[in-house]
Amino acid sequence: MIYVTRRERFSSAHRMYREEWPDDENLKVFGKCSNPNWHGHNYILYVTVKGDPSPDLGFFININTLKRIINEKVIEKIDHKNINLEVDFMHGQMATTENLAIAIWKVLRPEIEKEGAFLHCIKITETENNFVEYYG
Amino acid sequence: MIYVTRRERFSSAHRMYREEWPDDENLKVFGKCSNPNWHGHNYILYVTVKGDPSPDLGFFININTLKRIINEKVIEKIDHKNINLEVDFMHGQMATTENLAIAIWKVLRPEIEKEGAFLHCIKITETENNFVEYYG
Amino acid sequence: MIYVTRRERFSSAHRMYREEWPDDENLKVFGKCSNPNWHGHNYILYVTVKGDPSPDLGFFININTLKRIINEKVIEKIDHKNINLEVDFMHGQMATTENLAIAIWKVLRPEIEKEGAFLHCIKITETENNFVEYYG
Amino acid sequence: MIYVTRRERFSSAHRMYREEWPDDENLKVFGKCSNPNWHGHNYILYVTVKGDPSPDLGFFININTLKRIINEKVIEKIDHKNINLEVDFMHGQMATTENLAIAIWKVLRPEIEKEGAFLHCIKITETENNFVEYYG
Amino acid sequence: MIYVTRRERFSSAHRMYREEWPDDENLKVFGKCSNPNWHGHNYILYVTVKGDPSPDLGFFININTLKRIINEKVIEKIDHKNINLEVDFMHGQMATTENLAIAIWKVLRPEIEKEGAFLHCIKITETENNFVEYYG
Amino acid sequence: MIYVTRRERFSSAHRMYREEWPDDENLKVFGKCSNPNWHGHNYILYVTVKGDPSPDLGFFININTLKRIINEKVIEKIDHKNINLEVDFMHGQMATTENLAIAIWKVLRPEIEKEGAFLHCIKITETENNFVEYYG
Repeated sequence: MIYVTRRERFSSAHRMYREEWPDDENLKVFGKCSNPNWHGHNYILYVTVKGDPSPDLGFFININTLKRIINEKVIEKIDHKNINLEVDFMHGQMATTENLAIAIWKVLRPEIEKEGAFLHCIKITETENNFVEYYG
Repeated sequence: MIYVTRRERFSSAHRMYREEWPDDENLKVFGKCSNPNWHGHNYILYVTVKGDPSPDLGFFININTLKRIINEKVIEKIDHKNINLEVDFMHGQMATTENLAIAIWKVLRPEIEKEGAFLHCIKITETENNFVEYYG
Repeated sequence: MIYVTRRERFSSAHRMYREEWPDDENLKVFGKCSNPNWHGHNYILYVTVKGDPSPDLGFFININTLKRIINEKVIEKIDHKNINLEVDFMHGQMATTENLAIAIWKVLRPEIEKEGAFLHCIKITETENNFVEYYG
Repeated sequence: MIYVTRRERFSSAHRMYREEWPDDENLKVFGKCSNPNWHGHNYILYVTVKGDPSPDLGFFININTLKRIINEKVIEKIDHKNINLEVDFMHGQMATTENLAIAIWKVLRPEIEKEGAFLHCIKITETENNFVEYYG
Repeated sequence: MIYVTRRERFSSAHRMYREEWPDDENLKVFGKCSNPNWHGHNYILYVTVKGDPSPDLGFFININTLKRIINEKVIEKIDHKNINLEVDFMHGQMATTENLAIAIWKVLRPEIEKEGAFLHCIKITETENNFVEYYG
Repeated sequence: MIYVTRRERFSSAHRMYREEWPDDENLKVFGKCSNPNWHGHNYILYVTVKGDPSPDLGFFININTLKRIINEKVIEKIDHKNINLEVDFMHGQMATTENLAIAIWKVLRPEIEKEGAFLHCIKITETENNFVEYYG
């Protein structure tokens, strides 16, 4: 088994808040991340897949296939968008990086498996100081 | 003369558009950066000041003073905010990184000069592939 | 389970040596890292914790809580200090990055568990070419 | 058990292709990576070893020993070389990063074990967007 | 005047040598960079242009225009190619990073000026330790 | 004229203080950087030289020559040392990064000129957030 990781990026707006709470309650729990007029990040997404390289080709998934899947299923839907308002796979969930990793896992897993590979990890960095990882 | 640079970061939402234009005109000119529901970035700000180090102290401005000025005058006003809606020094201007650099120059220059130093350059990176510099 | 990592930094002096050995023996075993007048590094610390995000909040630990714990228990005690002479959790141990990772694990684990989360990994980079990881 | 990673770099030429295929078939499968006149990369190699630090020394392998092994067995043979034509441990294999990671694992494992440590992972980044990991 | 920089990347093979010299003479002067079977790098190209942002748009050149020019005129011709053998704007010149910067300046300058902007600097990093800059 | 930059690194201990001042006065002026038991950094040094590439060789200074000079004259004297106590070219000066840049300029300039090139800039980063530049 070998692990192959593709890195892609997206720049999006988001806000952490519960609609039923007043602004000051949101501020107390989520701090500046609850700013009602949104803020945003340059997110970095690392998708790690695993498989056995074929002797003929020296790989188990073409990196361009992996890149195409990530772009079609994730980047085009989230890049330069508002994660709370515009991203279908995040509807009804808090727009945290934790939930984002889990949601992207669910979106990508069947696509990766169609290619005969296994999804191993979704890693997302929100800032240079904070990142999350999800292994299913 | 020696040049000293302090790096600070802010994560903000913005949108590039002209209010009097329809959405499709904004889309044509500004592309995905005109998304009506905003998007955002992890901006990196580099403030370069210059001066002659005093023999007694070995510097001409205390880096903590520089850090405090940048945080009070810029970061607290723009971090986790919407640049178009909430940042006073950007009112009435297109929220481009170019205009941001010029506006931050105007905000910081008098503060730096009060400390007996000179402002040399404002550099802002918007993504890992795009940055701007302004020298006054 | 999701994994959340917080990155913090500290700049400290240290020396690798055994007190009962002469300088040339220390030099033979530890090389330039045994320099009697110390040297230092910008260490980077990555603390990874794991847990299940609550549906209400979208996370299992507030990143600001994690940041506060790391700063109070580790950074304030080691940043701009001499690891051999001034850091209580390193007393009586060789000031290697390996031992540092184990010591920081011991300091942080009970604090993380008080918050209902699990400590997963302590990673420390000493230079851009060397880093260690400890999983308990 | 603690994990120690050493980072080394090499700059090499390579090409992905099957000799028995015509150029256009290679182009279809391997894309621009099959360019007949070669292309190249700044590869970054991370070698992770594991062991128990001795109380006397605070480590289980001297980082200089690890560095020497990697340089003698890998870097000197591959840096500023053509991976397809000149690297003995890659003879007869497709010059993919996947195969490179497996081959370097085979070269380094016995050398690491001679030092009383265990090889844990070979990670190679080919570009800032693509990397592979192999755990044996 | 404001300065805007776009970063692009290319991965190419090259060799430093003089055809009329024997291999050992080339080795003496150019070291391992003269390897007859080529080697390669992940080059990073920074193109800096300058101009006055228009009040209407907040920029003087659309970053997508700049990106398109660099890709059409430089990246498509050099990425995944052999700089000595396949890059028309390097014909007849030593394949050093210095000459590459000057050649890319000559290619890009008229294209940038057609857009009403000025080319300010071409910067190319060959490895993380070596880079060159050319200002015309 | 073309500008060539070489990056080198050193890890050293230092302290900012005036011997004739009590510890609390030093603490007030220099903050935690005055810690009596030292602290340290991974400094990064960028040496930029300029010249006209010869048509024969494609460069004006061999990067290996530049590397050798920087290592012999600077790195070997400062790496894994105490800047206040052990570095001859810093004797009698405050151990600030500003003074370090000026001192390294003085050390390197004559050596660079012996090679027929010009020294253009000494840049030193002390942490990822602070750096200085000196142009003579």
